[in-house]
Amino acid sequence: MTIAMTTSPEALTACCTPTGEPAMSEETASSLAAQFKAIADPNRLRMVSIISSSENAEACVCDITEPLNLGQSTVSHHLKILVDAGVLTREKRGVWAYYSLVPGALDSLAGALTGRS
Amino acid sequence: MTIAMTTSPEALTACCTPTGEPAMSEETASSLAAQFKAIADPNRLRMVSIISSSENAEACVCDITEPLNLGQSTVSHHLKILVDAGVLTREKRGVWAYYSLVPGALDSLAGALTGRS
Repeated sequence: MTIAMTTSPEALTACCTPTGEPAMSEETASSLAAQFKAIADPNRLRMVSIISSSENAEACVCDITEPLNLGQSTVSHHLKILVDAGVLTREKRGVWAYYSLVPGALDSLAGALTGRS
Repeated sequence: MTIAMTTSPEALTACCTPTGEPAMSEETASSLAAQFKAIADPNRLRMVSIISSSENAEACVCDITEPLNLGQSTVSHHLKILVDAGVLTREKRGVWAYYSLVPGALDSLAGALTGRS
């Protein structure tokens, strides 16, 4: 009786059968990674959470500064990263800048994770 | 007739009404940020994509090394980051290490983005 050993030559090559599925393209991966990098920060995640749970899904800097107990320049710095990454939009009204979610941006990132994009 | 100016004292305070919603906790934000940081890299996103589209949603290092055209030590380095972050599990079988998705890990990250977690 022959017992197949996991270290037989067959076993050594068996795992390398191509799946036939192309890997995610470099362009898609770079673009997604840039957006994930923007939200991969505790303060920025909390900012997005505050904005998405606010009325009309928008908030001004002061709505965000207070609950996070951060200085306004720190908050503005983080918000700029989220705007540059296409996660938030910024609209100046009077003396205040209001931030809101880019429609579909978070759903699109979520879809990339679950394969439902 | 009085015209309300956007720079009136009322306008200056109007945006700062608390939403009543607590911000995401620091602990939750830190833990999520660590996982997002792990996937916020083009190569690691492509690795996760290869594994999730493979048969049985598992792949060995060589399944990943070839399509990405990366050295095995680079691939192993990236895979370790994903394992440490709780995104992948690693199982040694014979001479090969197989990597698979931690059940629910990506869905849970996606849910954090869409508020459906």
